[in-house]
Amino acid sequence: MKILIIGGNGTIGKKVSAYFRGKYEVIIGGRSNSDVSIDISKSESIEAGLNKIGKLDAIICIAGEAKWDKFENLTEEDYYIGLKSKLMGQVNLVRIGRNYLNKKGSITLSTGILADDPVEKTTSAAMVNGAIHSFVKAVDLEMENEIRVNAVSLGVVEDAYEKYKDYFPGHNPVNMNKVVNAYIRSVEGKGSGEIIRQYE
Amino acid sequence: MKILIIGGNGTIGKKVSAYFRGKYEVIIGGRSNSDVSIDISKSESIEAGLNKIGKLDAIICIAGEAKWDKFENLTEEDYYIGLKSKLMGQVNLVRIGRNYLNKKGSITLSTGILADDPVEKTTSAAMVNGAIHSFVKAVDLEMENEIRVNAVSLGVVEDAYEKYKDYFPGHNPVNMNKVVNAYIRSVEGKGSGEIIRQYE
Repeated sequence: MKILIIGGNGTIGKKVSAYFRGKYEVIIGGRSNSDVSIDISKSESIEAGLNKIGKLDAIICIAGEAKWDKFENLTEEDYYIGLKSKLMGQVNLVRIGRNYLNKKGSITLSTGILADDPVEKTTSAAMVNGAIHSFVKAVDLEMENEIRVNAVSLGVVEDAYEKYKDYFPGHNPVNMNKVVNAYIRSVEGKGSGEIIRQYE
Repeated sequence: MKILIIGGNGTIGKKVSAYFRGKYEVIIGGRSNSDVSIDISKSESIEAGLNKIGKLDAIICIAGEAKWDKFENLTEEDYYIGLKSKLMGQVNLVRIGRNYLNKKGSITLSTGILADDPVEKTTSAAMVNGAIHSFVKAVDLEMENEIRVNAVSLGVVEDAYEKYKDYFPGHNPVNMNKVVNAYIRSVEGKGSGEIIRQYE
């Protein structure tokens, strides 16, 4: 199996990549420190990166930005950071990426607990995550070639807990083994159109 | 109580307006056939319309577009129709509208069953609806002045059933009294941050 992991060198991505590298051929995509340069916020960059790689069996995206700030501070333009990057970046990855997948291939997107259980300053991030949850259910009805699309929705992960804990009062950090397992479930399982929630 | 109903002359809007007009002062907003011209896809239009009206006790939005088509046909630009209109139009209505509401005022947005239970050709519409569901939960944590924000999420409504039934195989039309009641629950009830689902 040949897997592209976009954001495969990030906090979550490096743990996920370490697992898959032990079993399969892994290519790391991203804006920096990557095997192939891919910026998901630009369709041309997705297309160019995938063109270089050729056919794949799985694509995992653990990338995408959204601006965090108080609702009263967020401008209309601020919302478009998340819409262009984490939302449309992942939608475009499905639109374009499906053409580079072998039969029965899979695409795994990343969202998070804010879709279901937001905290302060996350009106933008929450809406982007919620959008992807509904998108995944909808696109699953139309995928061809037996291609599966799922989203992994995580709580605050252990390796980022110190940095983010003040934003998430009372939240329990998600153990990194559980984090990796959520991605394994998507790629190696047979489920499709699923939101794989791992919130603690 | 003084209520602005954007889209108050549409299929759903006219039934909702008829109820509220019997009890309160109702102003119809919209792109045409309205008391005050408001195009939610443009922030300046929202601001200008609200400026003309002055202080309000409730805003109901039953407006917003998204493009319906097969996933393989939808372009990146097509998704931005929904993002700019039904999604950011309603987000901007909360951003701007809260400043025109009296204490304990309310804002009611409109979404739909596709967020939870999409059908073919609705990857764009589903994601916009899902985005608003999460946005409503998130913004509810930050509203001041005791302002409430809810979303009404409907199935295929009775008055549009003939037009849409082929898109929704096996769905049960929502009786128009139930439709109106969902908006009454949001405006006259005390709930906040709620997704008021009425799917059949």
